[in-house]
Amino acid sequence: MKKRENFSDCLLKEIERLKNPSCIGLDPKIEEIPSCIKKGNPPEKAILEFTKKVIDATYDIVPAFKLQMAHFERFKSKGIAVLEKIISYLKEKKKIIILDGKRNDIGATSQIYALTYLSKNGFDVQAITINPYLGTDGVMPFVEIAKKEKKGIFVLVKTSNPSSVEIQEKKLQDGKKVSELIASLVCRWGKETEGKRGYNLVGAVVSATFPKSARNLRKLMPKSIFLVPGYGAQGGKAKDVVANFKKGLEGAIVNSSRGIIFAFKRAPFNKKFGEKRFDEAVRESALVMKRDLLSALKIKEN
Amino acid sequence: MKKRENFSDCLLKEIERLKNPSCIGLDPKIEEIPSCIKKGNPPEKAILEFTKKVIDATYDIVPAFKLQMAHFERFKSKGIAVLEKIISYLKEKKKIIILDGKRNDIGATSQIYALTYLSKNGFDVQAITINPYLGTDGVMPFVEIAKKEKKGIFVLVKTSNPSSVEIQEKKLQDGKKVSELIASLVCRWGKETEGKRGYNLVGAVVSATFPKSARNLRKLMPKSIFLVPGYGAQGGKAKDVVANFKKGLEGAIVNSSRGIIFAFKRAPFNKKFGEKRFDEAVRESALVMKRDLLSALKIKEN
Repeated sequence: MKKRENFSDCLLKEIERLKNPSCIGLDPKIEEIPSCIKKGNPPEKAILEFTKKVIDATYDIVPAFKLQMAHFERFKSKGIAVLEKIISYLKEKKKIIILDGKRNDIGATSQIYALTYLSKNGFDVQAITINPYLGTDGVMPFVEIAKKEKKGIFVLVKTSNPSSVEIQEKKLQDGKKVSELIASLVCRWGKETEGKRGYNLVGAVVSATFPKSARNLRKLMPKSIFLVPGYGAQGGKAKDVVANFKKGLEGAIVNSSRGIIFAFKRAPFNKKFGEKRFDEAVRESALVMKRDLLSALKIKEN
Repeated sequence: MKKRENFSDCLLKEIERLKNPSCIGLDPKIEEIPSCIKKGNPPEKAILEFTKKVIDATYDIVPAFKLQMAHFERFKSKGIAVLEKIISYLKEKKKIIILDGKRNDIGATSQIYALTYLSKNGFDVQAITINPYLGTDGVMPFVEIAKKEKKGIFVLVKTSNPSSVEIQEKKLQDGKKVSELIASLVCRWGKETEGKRGYNLVGAVVSATFPKSARNLRKLMPKSIFLVPGYGAQGGKAKDVVANFKKGLEGAIVNSSRGIIFAFKRAPFNKKFGEKRFDEAVRESALVMKRDLLSALKIKEN
């Protein structure tokens, strides 16, 4: 059977074209936004303006952007209107958009969520993050709509927060950890969605903050692209994320949110650029991240 | 130490005042809404009008309403604007509002979600449903804000869908099921939030479709109010939900969504009322549910 191009193929193509396996997390927390942007603006306008400037500063070097729903939901219908505008803006620039909503529900409701976020009549983004706690029938509606629309999902397997050990690392009677059980489900959910490059449309969220787990999960989910949180501000290093890749630039996309979009607050970017030139700090920190990842992956920049 | 009134106290008071431990699930799926309401209206207007009529038909007999976020998110900013209007409408009628969003994220983001939904500057509803897969640091921001604002949360422990067995019923090495591990975390998360009646503000979602599990979970979480999905359209019977209660009307609130709001589609309400008198079908089915629960709980109606 001839394999059809799927979401993973599109993502890999962009990663390779830009030689950059990173993703910028757009978490426009209003409290952190430069005061020069907040001044005189209602908050929803400030997050729109700020986020657009982050995109302007990086869209030519970064293949994908991850939008954190919480920061838009916060401003109710006005916040969601901003989310719609940002999605349109990213689409104009032909960027891959991952919506970080961690949605999940029983089947009938998951289908509504899948239509809402992945279908052409909905927000129509390329991928969404999904919480697996409800099992197969809460996930398959997303897989089916993603398949039809050439979209993808990323299932939470091993998250970046310290408490992720409480449930995800607990051992089951067969000796597997809970996160390993989820990994086996991820493989099952992705069956028959393989693209031309051999990856399914069901990806996995696997943190950079637990490299030993990542190495193990990489083996258990050979056909999944990993979306890797925890790099940068959350403590994950480039050497830690290498375990999430399969070969070369293949197999993972590493996200950084705060570490990039609010780079103007930290050394060395604070002194060099300051708050007013926050967008230059965004671009430079994104380039530093790219080089950092390429160097850890032993890939020449050009 | 003198106990302060908390969310559970408010919920119990309303349940007892109306002698009704049920909750109507507002899942206004546009495809199911009567055509007399859809006619000539854009979908977001139709869901607003329909939902208001459901509320009008039942607010004097039902203590709480559960809003399913998916059906509002579906219509993007316009849908969220409708959600805001419905929340205001329910507040005017002094109803308890549970937002069914199953939100969860790492700590920093959970805090934004908690502010968004539970605080006075946000949607300001009484309670929200939470997915526990990320563990303590993803849940505590909700608990802290709920404590401050006299609000509550309901943590998914045992959901009503058939696939809930895949993860939630798996046994850990200590012999506990995953859902029982979550139950122990629910107790820990609720510590020091006890109200005057002895219940914490951290409740649990425990389905009516698995009565054996419910009986067990009731023992494991003695201080949690259970939000019980799965009654009615999903197959749970009144005799099955008894296991979720502690004594009398105490300890649980049973939700029905489709079975009530779209009662006009099923016997005997379809023949008696038909589509045009759908609101009468809503009221009558809600009264039938109330009587059904009271009878199973062996409580006299008046």
